[in-house]
Amino acid sequence: MSQGERLPVGIIGASGYGGVQLVRLLQDHPQLELVYLGGDSSAGKPFGDLYPHLEHSIKLKVEAIDLDAIAQRCGAVFLSLPNGLACNLAPPLIAKGVKVLDLSADYRFRELQTYTSWYGKQRHDQETAAVAVYGLPELYRDRIKTSSLIGCAGCYPTASLLAVSPLLKQGLVEPETIIIDAKSGTSGGGRQAKINLLLAEADNSFCAYGVASHRHTPEIEQVCSDLASQEMLVQFTPHLVPMVRGILSTVYGKLRDPGLVREDLLTIYSAFYRASPFVKILPAGIYPQTKWACGTNLCYIGVEVDARTGRVIVMSAIDNMIKGQAGQAIQCLNIMMGWEETLGLPKLCFYP
Amino acid sequence: MSQGERLPVGIIGASGYGGVQLVRLLQDHPQLELVYLGGDSSAGKPFGDLYPHLEHSIKLKVEAIDLDAIAQRCGAVFLSLPNGLACNLAPPLIAKGVKVLDLSADYRFRELQTYTSWYGKQRHDQETAAVAVYGLPELYRDRIKTSSLIGCAGCYPTASLLAVSPLLKQGLVEPETIIIDAKSGTSGGGRQAKINLLLAEADNSFCAYGVASHRHTPEIEQVCSDLASQEMLVQFTPHLVPMVRGILSTVYGKLRDPGLVREDLLTIYSAFYRASPFVKILPAGIYPQTKWACGTNLCYIGVEVDARTGRVIVMSAIDNMIKGQAGQAIQCLNIMMGWEETLGLPKLCFYP
Amino acid sequence: MSQGERLPVGIIGASGYGGVQLVRLLQDHPQLELVYLGGDSSAGKPFGDLYPHLEHSIKLKVEAIDLDAIAQRCGAVFLSLPNGLACNLAPPLIAKGVKVLDLSADYRFRELQTYTSWYGKQRHDQETAAVAVYGLPELYRDRIKTSSLIGCAGCYPTASLLAVSPLLKQGLVEPETIIIDAKSGTSGGGRQAKINLLLAEADNSFCAYGVASHRHTPEIEQVCSDLASQEMLVQFTPHLVPMVRGILSTVYGKLRDPGLVREDLLTIYSAFYRASPFVKILPAGIYPQTKWACGTNLCYIGVEVDARTGRVIVMSAIDNMIKGQAGQAIQCLNIMMGWEETLGLPKLCFYP
Amino acid sequence: MSQGERLPVGIIGASGYGGVQLVRLLQDHPQLELVYLGGDSSAGKPFGDLYPHLEHSIKLKVEAIDLDAIAQRCGAVFLSLPNGLACNLAPPLIAKGVKVLDLSADYRFRELQTYTSWYGKQRHDQETAAVAVYGLPELYRDRIKTSSLIGCAGCYPTASLLAVSPLLKQGLVEPETIIIDAKSGTSGGGRQAKINLLLAEADNSFCAYGVASHRHTPEIEQVCSDLASQEMLVQFTPHLVPMVRGILSTVYGKLRDPGLVREDLLTIYSAFYRASPFVKILPAGIYPQTKWACGTNLCYIGVEVDARTGRVIVMSAIDNMIKGQAGQAIQCLNIMMGWEETLGLPKLCFYP
Repeated sequence: MSQGERLPVGIIGASGYGGVQLVRLLQDHPQLELVYLGGDSSAGKPFGDLYPHLEHSIKLKVEAIDLDAIAQRCGAVFLSLPNGLACNLAPPLIAKGVKVLDLSADYRFRELQTYTSWYGKQRHDQETAAVAVYGLPELYRDRIKTSSLIGCAGCYPTASLLAVSPLLKQGLVEPETIIIDAKSGTSGGGRQAKINLLLAEADNSFCAYGVASHRHTPEIEQVCSDLASQEMLVQFTPHLVPMVRGILSTVYGKLRDPGLVREDLLTIYSAFYRASPFVKILPAGIYPQTKWACGTNLCYIGVEVDARTGRVIVMSAIDNMIKGQAGQAIQCLNIMMGWEETLGLPKLCFYP
Repeated sequence: MSQGERLPVGIIGASGYGGVQLVRLLQDHPQLELVYLGGDSSAGKPFGDLYPHLEHSIKLKVEAIDLDAIAQRCGAVFLSLPNGLACNLAPPLIAKGVKVLDLSADYRFRELQTYTSWYGKQRHDQETAAVAVYGLPELYRDRIKTSSLIGCAGCYPTASLLAVSPLLKQGLVEPETIIIDAKSGTSGGGRQAKINLLLAEADNSFCAYGVASHRHTPEIEQVCSDLASQEMLVQFTPHLVPMVRGILSTVYGKLRDPGLVREDLLTIYSAFYRASPFVKILPAGIYPQTKWACGTNLCYIGVEVDARTGRVIVMSAIDNMIKGQAGQAIQCLNIMMGWEETLGLPKLCFYP
Repeated sequence: MSQGERLPVGIIGASGYGGVQLVRLLQDHPQLELVYLGGDSSAGKPFGDLYPHLEHSIKLKVEAIDLDAIAQRCGAVFLSLPNGLACNLAPPLIAKGVKVLDLSADYRFRELQTYTSWYGKQRHDQETAAVAVYGLPELYRDRIKTSSLIGCAGCYPTASLLAVSPLLKQGLVEPETIIIDAKSGTSGGGRQAKINLLLAEADNSFCAYGVASHRHTPEIEQVCSDLASQEMLVQFTPHLVPMVRGILSTVYGKLRDPGLVREDLLTIYSAFYRASPFVKILPAGIYPQTKWACGTNLCYIGVEVDARTGRVIVMSAIDNMIKGQAGQAIQCLNIMMGWEETLGLPKLCFYP
Repeated sequence: MSQGERLPVGIIGASGYGGVQLVRLLQDHPQLELVYLGGDSSAGKPFGDLYPHLEHSIKLKVEAIDLDAIAQRCGAVFLSLPNGLACNLAPPLIAKGVKVLDLSADYRFRELQTYTSWYGKQRHDQETAAVAVYGLPELYRDRIKTSSLIGCAGCYPTASLLAVSPLLKQGLVEPETIIIDAKSGTSGGGRQAKINLLLAEADNSFCAYGVASHRHTPEIEQVCSDLASQEMLVQFTPHLVPMVRGILSTVYGKLRDPGLVREDLLTIYSAFYRASPFVKILPAGIYPQTKWACGTNLCYIGVEVDARTGRVIVMSAIDNMIKGQAGQAIQCLNIMMGWEETLGLPKLCFYP
């Protein structure tokens, strides 16, 4: 790639919400050029057939998946597929020299054992998995820099880990007391026709789901264990909010030092994320609203201490499809390419 | 009151959401007859001016508040006023022989000290407060029966206490581990013009508020302490959901006996609420949706055990304005009058 | 049926939104008793499996469809099926002496020709169709009284025809100028998993659909032509509103007499609907909100005259699934049975 | 302004929704630099106090309004104030050489008489009003180019006029048959605490308002009369949609030539807007969704012909606060400065 040229990139699985976010974000990126869209069910269709509002600006057709062609045309590829498919595509793509950013769960686990027990699929790509880096730049920036395979963090894990990391890294809370009560808009369920995600069903209602069994649990636990330098379990409960986008994680933990006050923690959080341009620590008494993060790659964090109970409560808000998915993948690629990590990513919401 | 006659009742503070719920519910009650609506700012107006859709069925005018007249015309009165006003009206009304159901916080606390420290108002009606009964029928049915002053339970406390009571009463969890992560629709903020409750601001967003400082905390703690027979603190965090009605409380607690399984707890919950017709324990694996409770006096409860972490997670759903407010007040009055407690109250939602 | 006994009724196609409304409404009806639920795909399942919130109150199982058994057990049957199926079931059911209320389009048309050209299905039940009565009680009360087969009016036609009928019946507007701009919540699309009805797609958006081609057009035109005593075409445009329930129809027409003022029209509307307890004409300057009608069998109507343009604008609001579907079917059955037409039907919304 | 320097601009009335849109849009504009925020009630406050999510990126304070200071520091000023205030500020600002873009109604009318009769305020700035240009670039691009005072078009007029202009300009419809049925999200009501705009009231409901009396009517009629070269009246009905942003206008007109088909009209529309980069004519059979335009300066237009009735139905979708307000103002300033009119404006939504 000579100077001034843009890196040609592709998306496999472009028809879903993850795909269309990538397509949209890439329109504004000064160094990346979208040259390939791949898919199975929609192969042969102009992308504008799937999303008519994009018809005037995206002229690409969805093509059948041909790894050789992709390797010839693309320097990097985003895999935006259901769980269990990327592990077939990533090894050959990497072998052909293509950088791979996987948005599914396939390359998020150090131990394929963990993947298999939560996702129910046998895997034989331990070698590839071993070189994959977990795609959460605020924690793994250095390793991402030199990697060619990123297992991009899930949406709930992104919000939850950014909220909890300073606490665990600094040993401020008792690890076994961590409870994550998380809430997501319904776009997290993807562009699939499911009755429970119909507006008629989900609107004006609120509920928990996947209690004590959601697949994002082991992913959160793996990173928490890293940070705490001890094996730890996490209580994680996702809820469905009657809104389109956004995740709020409310995290509870028992403080080891009951003398810590809110301002201490705000100082610690600010220092922890000093070099992380997308994380915004809010002033004392201000708690994040998911809407503030919508359409951006930001994570807003608010911190409160309850002196009565000796607990810290941390709230984090992200856009589940940008910082929680497509935007974070591009942030990773920016880092892999040695560019400014904020390059081409939205930094401010439209409000309201 | 001779046989066949209906009890004449009044509402002071009828213009808000609590008031209009009462007005609506009373239309369907076979033994209660709404004869008086009182208010300050809307005195003199036909009620249909405030709520045009009711113009054809509610012909009452809002009248200025005159306690003598009320006592002459009403056997019971609902006070639906901002905090700090009922404590001026209840003592004279009771003295005149009127049963009083207060929807505000004024008569929820055994110790006026607690009220004053959380609500900031000095009080001089300790004598009256001492005879008030906390209006949560599932826990205090017997005392409500013989009372003439009810401090109706708050909306969050209703949902949260129904979820947590069997655990504390039976000593199943470690009291200091109780965390209540609660979520409410925006009608909980009342019919007041506040910028943060505008649709343009609150829709498609989700946030926490009142973290570690919400006024429903001491009310929850008072009852929890009763149940656990020990002073206890509770972690309570309310959130604002972009929907009109409904509360979901997600309650976490560490099980004392790690051998307890979900089915054990479902059995315990079913037994605990056997005589409570408005509480519905859901089958294993089914979690409540707030929409199921909307427009009813029901509370749906789902229970889960996380064997990995040793915690129980209980979810409860109510309509914040019916079971959480006006419906529960009528349920209390039914009990005070010796009637079936379900009399005239809605038992099934319209879905979706 | 001896005195005091309730009429046993059944529902074929109980799993959809129309079915669950009927199930819910029948719980409150003093003269009807739900004894049978029939369906294909859900045959054998307890109804509570489909709608868990009803598990505690509805103990019926969905049964396979057996017309003989139905005729033995039911005095009347509601057919809540996709278009094109009722025309196979209604003839044998009527022959067996069962009253039939069809919620589909099958028996709404005097000319099967019209049905076939808009719905694309050949029909051979002209004889049965000839005795069917259009199920809009405010217009066809007398004919409904003596009928045993009702083709219940569609949701859009109900709202639109109640708005436009006085104008056409009295010859107040030029028929060819009638434009109906209608808006519906997404529950109108039924309990089917369609991508465009997902909350993630439909929320916070608004659009028209079926422009100049929606199947409710000929149904509206048939009744309008009756009222106007001349063949007439109607401009009808449906829109999708990001809400669950409710239809608002905004109807425009050129006044024949430019001297008519709003108060004249309000008088005419009030007189027209004097004997119709479910239609509420709003005072001058008040326009209906769909929320006022939600959960009720009411239709709220507001009328405005634009003296500048010489047009009348009529707005009508209903709950698309009650007055627009299940409630109206029960209203028809009440009339067929010689009961009060409001019997067992909800007459007041919960607000907000 | 030397080459490479950015034009310093200010906003008077920055605390409302129009103001915060401008603030947000200006962050991305390569040639404009926001240097001044003025206001009355919020003077002295950091802008981040009003909108905490912007605290990290907008460091300006709101200042008291001082016209001399503004003229010294700003080359152009946006006035985002309630109606009736800009007419006091614009004359002195223009006299001092500042370009003025007024977002209120004050400078939208050629005849101040019209303003006074609809807005109820006497005016004495006829001279200034006479030089103002109506800020709808697609129609008045050339006049905007040389103007220094823009009366930016209202939100409803923008959507409605873009939909209707080709029809009137080409004489395709009978002018007296034009009916505009428009629908807006609630942000159109501004950041003011009004009970009817609370989420609890407005969500899950739909209604008309301002029927036959909305103040945007004369503005639409003024431009329509220009286009049709004859005085004409328009039927305009606004509705409130339970969503935050977006307007859809559904426009009806009787075709003069009944032989015209949809494809003819699509060709005419495409030609009419050939030089207008923000207007997107949709393919046959595709109708616009407001969500497609959200967060952008785009206007999507769909066209349908009803051969049965001889009418054309045009639907247009915009973001009421971008193309309908702040974005369009910047588009006008781009044109006034001789820049590309799309400069710095968002051209693609995030979907869903």
